[in-house]
Amino acid sequence: MGTDNIQPSRRKFLQQTTVAGTGLLLAGPLNLFSQTTKTEYMSKNVKTKGYAGHDTTSKLTPWNFERRAVGDNDILIDIKFSGICHSDIHTIRGHWGKQVYPQVPGHEIAGIVAAVGKNVTKFKVGDKAGVGCMVDSCMQCNSCKNGEEHHCETTGMVGTYGTPDKTSPTGITQGGYSNNIVVTEHFAIKIPESISLQNAAPLLCAGITTYSPLMKANFQKGDKVGVAGIGGLGHLAIKLAVHKGAEVYAFTTSENKRKDILGFGAKEVIVVDSIDKLKPYAGTLDYMISTIPYAYELSDYAVCVKPYGHFTQVGQPINGEFKIDNAKFFFSRVNFNASLIGGIPETQEVIDHCALNKIYPEIQVIKASEINDAWDKVVNKEARYRYVIDIATL
Amino acid sequence: MGTDNIQPSRRKFLQQTTVAGTGLLLAGPLNLFSQTTKTEYMSKNVKTKGYAGHDTTSKLTPWNFERRAVGDNDILIDIKFSGICHSDIHTIRGHWGKQVYPQVPGHEIAGIVAAVGKNVTKFKVGDKAGVGCMVDSCMQCNSCKNGEEHHCETTGMVGTYGTPDKTSPTGITQGGYSNNIVVTEHFAIKIPESISLQNAAPLLCAGITTYSPLMKANFQKGDKVGVAGIGGLGHLAIKLAVHKGAEVYAFTTSENKRKDILGFGAKEVIVVDSIDKLKPYAGTLDYMISTIPYAYELSDYAVCVKPYGHFTQVGQPINGEFKIDNAKFFFSRVNFNASLIGGIPETQEVIDHCALNKIYPEIQVIKASEINDAWDKVVNKEARYRYVIDIATL
Ligand SMILES: [Zn+2]
Ligand SMILES: [Zn+2]
Ligand SMILES: [Zn+2]
Ligand SMILES: [Zn+2]
Repeated sequence: MGTDNIQPSRRKFLQQTTVAGTGLLLAGPLNLFSQTTKTEYMSKNVKTKGYAGHDTTSKLTPWNFERRAVGDNDILIDIKFSGICHSDIHTIRGHWGKQVYPQVPGHEIAGIVAAVGKNVTKFKVGDKAGVGCMVDSCMQCNSCKNGEEHHCETTGMVGTYGTPDKTSPTGITQGGYSNNIVVTEHFAIKIPESISLQNAAPLLCAGITTYSPLMKANFQKGDKVGVAGIGGLGHLAIKLAVHKGAEVYAFTTSENKRKDILGFGAKEVIVVDSIDKLKPYAGTLDYMISTIPYAYELSDYAVCVKPYGHFTQVGQPINGEFKIDNAKFFFSRVNFNASLIGGIPETQEVIDHCALNKIYPEIQVIKASEINDAWDKVVNKEARYRYVIDIATL
Repeated sequence: MGTDNIQPSRRKFLQQTTVAGTGLLLAGPLNLFSQTTKTEYMSKNVKTKGYAGHDTTSKLTPWNFERRAVGDNDILIDIKFSGICHSDIHTIRGHWGKQVYPQVPGHEIAGIVAAVGKNVTKFKVGDKAGVGCMVDSCMQCNSCKNGEEHHCETTGMVGTYGTPDKTSPTGITQGGYSNNIVVTEHFAIKIPESISLQNAAPLLCAGITTYSPLMKANFQKGDKVGVAGIGGLGHLAIKLAVHKGAEVYAFTTSENKRKDILGFGAKEVIVVDSIDKLKPYAGTLDYMISTIPYAYELSDYAVCVKPYGHFTQVGQPINGEFKIDNAKFFFSRVNFNASLIGGIPETQEVIDHCALNKIYPEIQVIKASEINDAWDKVVNKEARYRYVIDIATL
């Protein structure tokens, strides 16, 4: 039944061959294998091994579950690397609402296509493929038609994990801390040959989340851009903004990140050990993006932007709420907005952009057994800067 | 000393004559009088009769105090009408910070110029003149030079009442619930002949506060504009937006304002007796302005704006703070900003614009003895729509 019907040796060969290049896929035994396994994936649920949360407090543990059979428009991805996002922790810990358990988090997924449904045209077996923060939407509404599937106006986007989903045997979608995923081809991202899977994974959430507002932001070469919160998202925001030509001012609470941050290309590092440290920057920045994922003094950061400029929040705080000091806003005349990931076309764009321009996340590849420890480090701001799970260690 | 040196009969004549028209002022006995009194105003503090708050809770009562002598760049205005703004109440009641008492509120001031300093060129005795929310600023910084005196970068603007001020004999500025005011000519507004003083007064705060963001807002003829909170500010926002060509959606909690609001030109009135009433409007408006002056469900209103549109807050809540539901912001993609009155050139603009286009506030003229009662009505949302004090009744 499902993937475990492939003998380990055959499977290993399949993986190695597909990683080697697509040329091989068009002929020889491999093609035959994929024909064989394809039929099985189509008719039966796919068996999956993952790391799941079981309640709001206890550690993640290994868990076997099933995914839906591969449908005509689906692909099956053998996951190779999966990034750890702060959102995974917030979600499983119940910070953003009650959850269904067991739940496998993870929405920075990179792997190799292992099977394709009969209508699939975007991928073939052996392609590098990724999945980000969503796996479905209505595809009928204006937002979906305009490539803003994350703003689907009817069903809303179906998150990669934890969203109730009739097609999932567990009743909810299950994420990327696991060895495979079944997803409609539309919601899978093509990963260029020139970027490694481990570098690609974090771009699918941390990358798109910062890329989308930074590309929309109205700043020019040489303009001053602030980035607040230099973690998984923030360090990519610096690299992306620097590449767009900005003079980047990085605001962090960690003095020991200073050297790294300058290495990412920032012009200046401001260690905000007291809110007073922000004062000299009031009204000086052309744009600012904050990735700070907890309730913080947002208004004091926002006023660093010049009058009539924009400030974008991309981190989602624990209870989802910020306090706005209205007087600071009317004196500063800054526009506040918030941004949520990006649509599928834009997610493809960020991967292509980063591959082409060699903009890579700073990653630490960890074993599955280190996931719980990595979560603690993310919470304690010790990540440098993105943990990526080597799924082979699952 | 000061104004009470003018005998009542002479003073009455002076007032009646100046109201009659400026032609008379250039010759005859009046000119002689103003020369005489001018000298006195220049050398001695001006005596003033006002209505003052004495602490955060008790009623306003009549109070005699002094204003500074008329300086070379100052004018003295005999106040005829003074609007009651919700800010007066918030300030005197200590909602926005500790106050110095006795304090005379009022920053919607309209009257007749009674004396001018020797350097004054903008006014002559007998002119209609007004004072809004500020009476001074540094006039040296970029904001001041660019006509944004309310955003003075050095001293900050000097508010019309309650701001510490060395030139004021009482140590703080004193506002318009009084029979005269001394102000630098730059901070006085010329009131066109074609608009009555009682109609002009509310334009100096309620008018400019809504005019400034509405003129900056990027909406076209026929676009949908929301106005939330239909009181002194909101009813003017409707009239100004309708005049700019908008299809106005008015959000109020008072069913009994419906007929009035349609009379102001609004296309639709939404009585928000439950937050659910906002739901059908999600994502439908091109722009929205809120004048709601208390902590309210700002995020639920803001999401009525179309993606990437702007929402402006002009009311200042009691503790100056709003809660932002970050998820509602990232789903709606709405920009939040706040706006504070407007600069002197723009205040002149709104008065001229309203006089020319006959855009008048809906006012109820009251006697000074009715001030405390009017305050209660403002708090209880019973004002229809702006109380204006007839200063002759002081
Ligand atoms: Zn994420
Ligand atoms: Zn949709
Ligand atoms: Zn006011
Ligand atoms: Zn200034």
